[in-house]
Amino acid sequence: MTLTIQPVGEAEKTRAADWFAALRDRICAAFEALEDAQAEAFPDGPHSHLPPGRFERTETRRESEDGSEGGGGLMSVMRGGRLFEKVGVNVSAVHGRLGEQAQRSLSARREIPGLAEDPRFWASGVSLVAHMRSPKCPAVHMNTRMFWTPTAWWFGGGSDLNPMREVAADTAFFHGVLKAACDRHDPAYYPRFKAWADEYFFNRHRREPRGVGGIFYDDLCTGDWEADFAFTQDVGRAFLDAFLPITERRRAEPWTPEDREHQLIRRGRYAEFNLVWDRGTRFGLETGHNIEAVLMSMPPEAKWP
Amino acid sequence: MTLTIQPVGEAEKTRAADWFAALRDRICAAFEALEDAQAEAFPDGPHSHLPPGRFERTETRRESEDGSEGGGGLMSVMRGGRLFEKVGVNVSAVHGRLGEQAQRSLSARREIPGLAEDPRFWASGVSLVAHMRSPKCPAVHMNTRMFWTPTAWWFGGGSDLNPMREVAADTAFFHGVLKAACDRHDPAYYPRFKAWADEYFFNRHRREPRGVGGIFYDDLCTGDWEADFAFTQDVGRAFLDAFLPITERRRAEPWTPEDREHQLIRRGRYAEFNLVWDRGTRFGLETGHNIEAVLMSMPPEAKWP
Repeated sequence: MTLTIQPVGEAEKTRAADWFAALRDRICAAFEALEDAQAEAFPDGPHSHLPPGRFERTETRRESEDGSEGGGGLMSVMRGGRLFEKVGVNVSAVHGRLGEQAQRSLSARREIPGLAEDPRFWASGVSLVAHMRSPKCPAVHMNTRMFWTPTAWWFGGGSDLNPMREVAADTAFFHGVLKAACDRHDPAYYPRFKAWADEYFFNRHRREPRGVGGIFYDDLCTGDWEADFAFTQDVGRAFLDAFLPITERRRAEPWTPEDREHQLIRRGRYAEFNLVWDRGTRFGLETGHNIEAVLMSMPPEAKWP
Repeated sequence: MTLTIQPVGEAEKTRAADWFAALRDRICAAFEALEDAQAEAFPDGPHSHLPPGRFERTETRRESEDGSEGGGGLMSVMRGGRLFEKVGVNVSAVHGRLGEQAQRSLSARREIPGLAEDPRFWASGVSLVAHMRSPKCPAVHMNTRMFWTPTAWWFGGGSDLNPMREVAADTAFFHGVLKAACDRHDPAYYPRFKAWADEYFFNRHRREPRGVGGIFYDDLCTGDWEADFAFTQDVGRAFLDAFLPITERRRAEPWTPEDREHQLIRRGRYAEFNLVWDRGTRFGLETGHNIEAVLMSMPPEAKWP
């Protein structure tokens, strides 16, 4: 079977980058609305008397290895809110030439003809990690992105839920929303991308999953850019549809100091995953660019007692 | 110049392993004595009313990759003391056959003839990391070890100081004690091993040192086992001579909540170093053995605000 790959140019790149920025705006607005609602939703909550959390935005620049300009992004962080202890949402659109190491690592994963001769690349995406005040509210991660080279393009992304103690109904709901989004595009997607998440979001050194999973995909190129872009947009929308109701359901549950202690230990595991196994974080650490944006996902507080 | 390598057998292995265990005992006794003294040394201290901290010991076993018995060790941890918030001291003596990855990583560093034909190894060492209650007391790390294969042996080790805010007099004292120990063996050691520590204990992704350095050495084999063993013993003794007076000098200094906050952020950097860059930790994470012992060095509490 020969795969026909739709050629992709500036128009598609712009549409993808615009979507990631629009999704960021939608997420930030939804999270700030949750902050506003929290005082009424949980009047006795230990943080409900605080001013509602707001995102602070910082521009990030990508420095190419040869020092030339390479695009940039916007890091949006909300700290110390009523409901969100720390949440970061990064968007970026970067370009340049892939160094030898990055070429090798991409070529090992998928065949990219001509990369050595023309190592230009372009990439854009949105990524988010939310650490909640309440040990009853799950932490969450979402990321979607598009990658382009002169001879190839693909999408990647995913979302996974990280409750401190699993609540079966929440796990089922989260997976159900993601499955419905996947099924609208291809019935094979959810089982494949759920299995990929189970494999990926796994703390191998502890032989334990980081959370209760979700979906993960990479190197997605059916050849039909419109279809793959539409799927990636739906993953972003599904994230909000899955996360907001769980948060609304759990945001007014009281918790004990023991719950908090357990939360801080689970966050230590989360930090271990990001620093030891997460490909994006490792890549960012090794190249050393925008370290604050790379480590925005780290928990505000964690324990290894 | 041909280097004559003294042959080393069971007697030397036993002497080295016994020394590491004896050093562990000496360190644990000194740290427990500091705990006893703390109530009187700092009567108004926020933790001086606690019972003096004591080490808890847990045996660790090494599982060989083929499942055969491979030696083990003892993990000694003191938690929630008056002076020590968390300190772990591991000793181990392990043996087995080096897997292919370990062979490659060793052979890349030093030529070990015949390793592929006879991949037996034996290793013993002591390692410690201390996280203090007081932000005025520096955290510290020390490690010394001996490695043996049928055709080679060598020593490695080091110690580095991690104050929350540098105090020039403490840095000078710590380095002075280590330098004196090095100078007794070879005047070239201290400058070489200090530079190695500066390079090694460095958070490359932040382009900042992890602390104020110390010494680091590996692959040390002059050919004279007695001399190299004596040096490694002196590094262990020097650690106590360097660390105890600094702790005694700082243990009764009051601190502010801002000092504590800063301490927790510095500990986050320490966690980053261990999970991202420390060779021993990375090796332990990738092989997945005795994960509690491998991660004993993690800070009891850390922040990424």
